Amino acid sequence: MIKACVVSIGNELLNGHTTDTNCSYICGRLLSTGIPVVSAYTVGDDIKQIVRSLKRAAEDADIVIVTGGLGPTDDDITRQAFAELLGVRLQVKSALLKDIRKFFSDRGLPMPEKNIIQACVPKGASVLENPFGTAPGIFAKMKRKLFFAMPGVPVEMKEMLEKAVLPRLAKKGAGSFTIVKKVRCFGMGESVLAEKLGNLMDRGRNPLINSTVGSGIITLHVVASAGTKKQAEQMAKKDVNRLRSLLGNLIFGVDDQTLPEVVGHWLLQNRKTITVAESCTGGLLTKLITDIPGASEYFTHGWITYSNRAKTELLGVPKQLIEKYGAVSEQVASAMAIAARHKAKSDFAIAITGIAGPAGGSKQKPVGLVYISVCDGADCQTKKCLFSYTRELIRTRAALTALNMLRLWSSRAKRLKP
Amino acid sequence: MIKACVVSIGNELLNGHTTDTNCSYICGRLLSTGIPVVSAYTVGDDIKQIVRSLKRAAEDADIVIVTGGLGPTDDDITRQAFAELLGVRLQVKSALLKDIRKFFSDRGLPMPEKNIIQACVPKGASVLENPFGTAPGIFAKMKRKLFFAMPGVPVEMKEMLEKAVLPRLAKKGAGSFTIVKKVRCFGMGESVLAEKLGNLMDRGRNPLINSTVGSGIITLHVVASAGTKKQAEQMAKKDVNRLRSLLGNLIFGVDDQTLPEVVGHWLLQNRKTITVAESCTGGLLTKLITDIPGASEYFTHGWITYSNRAKTELLGVPKQLIEKYGAVSEQVASAMAIAARHKAKSDFAIAITGIAGPAGGSKQKPVGLVYISVCDGADCQTKKCLFSYTRELIRTRAALTALNMLRLWSSRAKRLKP
Repeated sequence: MIKACVVSIGNELLNGHTTDTNCSYICGRLLSTGIPVVSAYTVGDDIKQIVRSLKRAAEDADIVIVTGGLGPTDDDITRQAFAELLGVRLQVKSALLKDIRKFFSDRGLPMPEKNIIQACVPKGASVLENPFGTAPGIFAKMKRKLFFAMPGVPVEMKEMLEKAVLPRLAKKGAGSFTIVKKVRCFGMGESVLAEKLGNLMDRGRNPLINSTVGSGIITLHVVASAGTKKQAEQMAKKDVNRLRSLLGNLIFGVDDQTLPEVVGHWLLQNRKTITVAESCTGGLLTKLITDIPGASEYFTHGWITYSNRAKTELLGVPKQLIEKYGAVSEQVASAMAIAARHKAKSDFAIAITGIAGPAGGSKQKPVGLVYISVCDGADCQTKKCLFSYTRELIRTRAALTALNMLRLWSSRAKRLKP
Repeated sequence: MIKACVVSIGNELLNGHTTDTNCSYICGRLLSTGIPVVSAYTVGDDIKQIVRSLKRAAEDADIVIVTGGLGPTDDDITRQAFAELLGVRLQVKSALLKDIRKFFSDRGLPMPEKNIIQACVPKGASVLENPFGTAPGIFAKMKRKLFFAMPGVPVEMKEMLEKAVLPRLAKKGAGSFTIVKKVRCFGMGESVLAEKLGNLMDRGRNPLINSTVGSGIITLHVVASAGTKKQAEQMAKKDVNRLRSLLGNLIFGVDDQTLPEVVGHWLLQNRKTITVAESCTGGLLTKLITDIPGASEYFTHGWITYSNRAKTELLGVPKQLIEKYGAVSEQVASAMAIAARHKAKSDFAIAITGIAGPAGGSKQKPVGLVYISVCDGADCQTKKCLFSYTRELIRTRAALTALNMLRLWSSRAKRLKP
C-alpha cells in the first residue's frame, strides 16, 4: 500500500507560538483518497534539518508532503532544501516571475526584490500553481518517491492540495479505500450521545465511529474501509442511516454542513426571511448567518442593541419593561424579537440578550445566563439558557443555540405542512 | 546548548481527526526554560515506528519528550516501545499497582484487568506521577540521553510536565535563556516589511526574527537567547524598539494583542464611543469589537443593513443616493457612517459596504471591492479597498482594515493633542 509522510517547516511551530493545523488536515484528506499518513515531522528553518527530515520521510513513505518555507523572506528555505536534496541548482522560471510581477502590478504595487526567489524552482522540478498568493508550490521526483512542497498559510495550502496535489495522487491510493462521513449533532452532551449509540462506537469495528466535540457541536466520524470505493461508501452510508434513526433531529447535518448553512438553506427553499436583534452576542449571530453566500436572499435587517438605550431607541423596547425585568429577561428578549420582526417585515426574528462576562454577573443573574427568543407571526418561543466557561464559549453557544431553535422550528413547520 | 525533541504518538494524530496541540505547548514551555526544541515527530500506534522515531529523536537532541500511548487499551504501546529501545523487560511496580487500585476504589469502581499494564515500567526506568489520571509517566536514561513519556490527554500532560518533567530539566537549560517577544503589524505585505527590516531578519542572528502572516496581520517573532533571563529580555526589548522605529505605526501591538483590543483600549482610555453600520461584513466587525470584555463602555448601537431597503429604513440613506451611485460606493459608505454616528450620538462611527462574493460582482464593481468610512464630528474618511480570494478572507480583511483605520485615526488624534 502506498504511504505518505507529512513534513511541516517553520521555527514558529517549534517555539510554542503556532499549532500546526495543516498536518492533521492533510492526513485526513490523504486518507480519504486511500493513502494513509504513517509519520509526520516538524523542523525549524534550518537547511540541514530540513534536508535530513526529507530523507527520513522518504525512508518512511512513498509520498512526502511538505508545508511551509515558501514565502519571500530569508527564513523561507524549502526551495533551497529541495535543491540540495535533489543535488541540483535553483532556476528562475520566467513564466513564474511574470505571474508574480502581475500579482503586484494588478494591485498597483511594485514587486519587491525579495519576491524573485519565489520564481525559483530546483532544476527538473515542476511548479504547483498558487491561485491565492505569490508562493507557488514545488513537485519533484527522486528514486520513485514523490515530493510536494506547499505554502504553510492554511488557506493557500488547502487550495493547492485540492487543485494540484490530490489530482496527481488520485490513482496512487487504489487498493484500499477509506471513506469518512461526518454526522453533525447539536443539543446533547457527548457521553449521553455515546450511551445512545451503544456498541456502534466499539473500537475495532469497521466502520469505526469516533466523536469530536466543539462549541456544543458533536461530530461523529464514520470511517469505513473496504477493497473498493463503492463498498466503503455503502458501509458508511448504512451507518449514517443507523445514526439518523437513533438520533433523529439531534442531527442537523452531514460532512461539513454548518448550522447557519442548514438554516439558511431551509429559509431559501421556503422563501422565508429572518431578522436578528442581538445584545450579548454583539453581531456574532448575524455574522454566522451572513457567512453563507447568498444570505441576502433571506437576511436584510439586523440590530446590535448592546446598551439599554439602544434597545429602547432602535427597537422600541419600553424603558419600563427593562427597568422592571432587567435587560436580561424573557420579557425583554421576546420584546426585542417581536419588534425586530415587525420593523424588518420579515417572517422570523431571533433576539438574544444575556451576560457574556467575565464581569456583569450577579447571584440572580450569573455570567452565562442568556435568553433567546424566536418568533414568527403567530408565536414567540423564549428559551432560558445557562452557558459555562469563557466569554467566547458563552457567545458561541448562545448564537448556535439560537440557530438550532430556528432549525427545530423549521423542522416542525415542515412536519406541519405535508 | 542542550536541545530537545518532541515525539507525539497516536493513530488519531495521523488520520485527520485530532490536531496535536501538545507539541506546541511543550515547545513553548521548554523554550522558556532555555531548552529549544529542534524537531518533532508524530507516529501511529505501531511499535516499530515508535522505536525508530525514538532513536531518530535521540540523534537530533539530548532530551526526548514523548506524549501518548500510555492508556490501558491495546493500542497504547509506549511502555513496550521504551522497553524495546532500552533492551529491557517490563516490570510490574507493586506501589504503582496499589495506587491504580486505589484510584478505582476511591471512585467505588472495580479495577478493570486492562489497567494492570499501567503499573508496568521498563526495568531501570523511573515513574512520573500522574495526579489527574491512572496513566503514570516514565523517565529513562540511555547513553546520556533523557527520555520522558507522558499521557496524551492535554490536561494530564500539562500537569505532569510542570510537576515532574520541567523540575528534572531546570538545571539542564541553565546557561541559556530564551525570550520570545511578538510585534504585530497591519497595513503592508510580508515582503515589503522584510525589505524594510533588511538584515534584521538574517538567519544566524541573535535575536532571531521570524515572521508569520494571517488575514493581513504580520507577526514578527523576536527570539532572543542569552546566558541570563535578564540579558535575553534586554536583547529582545532592544530589537522591539528597533522594530518600532523602523516600522512606526505599521505596528499595532505586541505579544497577543489584537486590533479590537488595541482600538478598544484607546476608546476606553479616551472615553470615546463607537457605532458601527455594516453591510457586506454582516456583523463581523461588531462581533470583533464586542469580543473584548467591557466593550459596552464604548460600544452601544450597531446596524446590519444588508439590503438597500435596510440602509434607507434604518439609517435614512437616501434611496436616490443608492440608485445614483450604487450601494457599494464611497457616497453610500460615508452616508451610512454619518447617519449611524448621528443616530447613536457616538464620537465615532464606522461603515462598511462591499461585495463579499462569490456572486454579485461586475466588471465595474468586482467581488472584493469594499468601501470603508470612518467619521467623527468633524471629518469623514472613506477608503476604497480591493480584497482578494474567498468570501471569508474578504470579510475579515474588510473588518480588520476598518479597525486599523480607526487606530490610525486615534494615533493621529493622540499626536494632535500633546
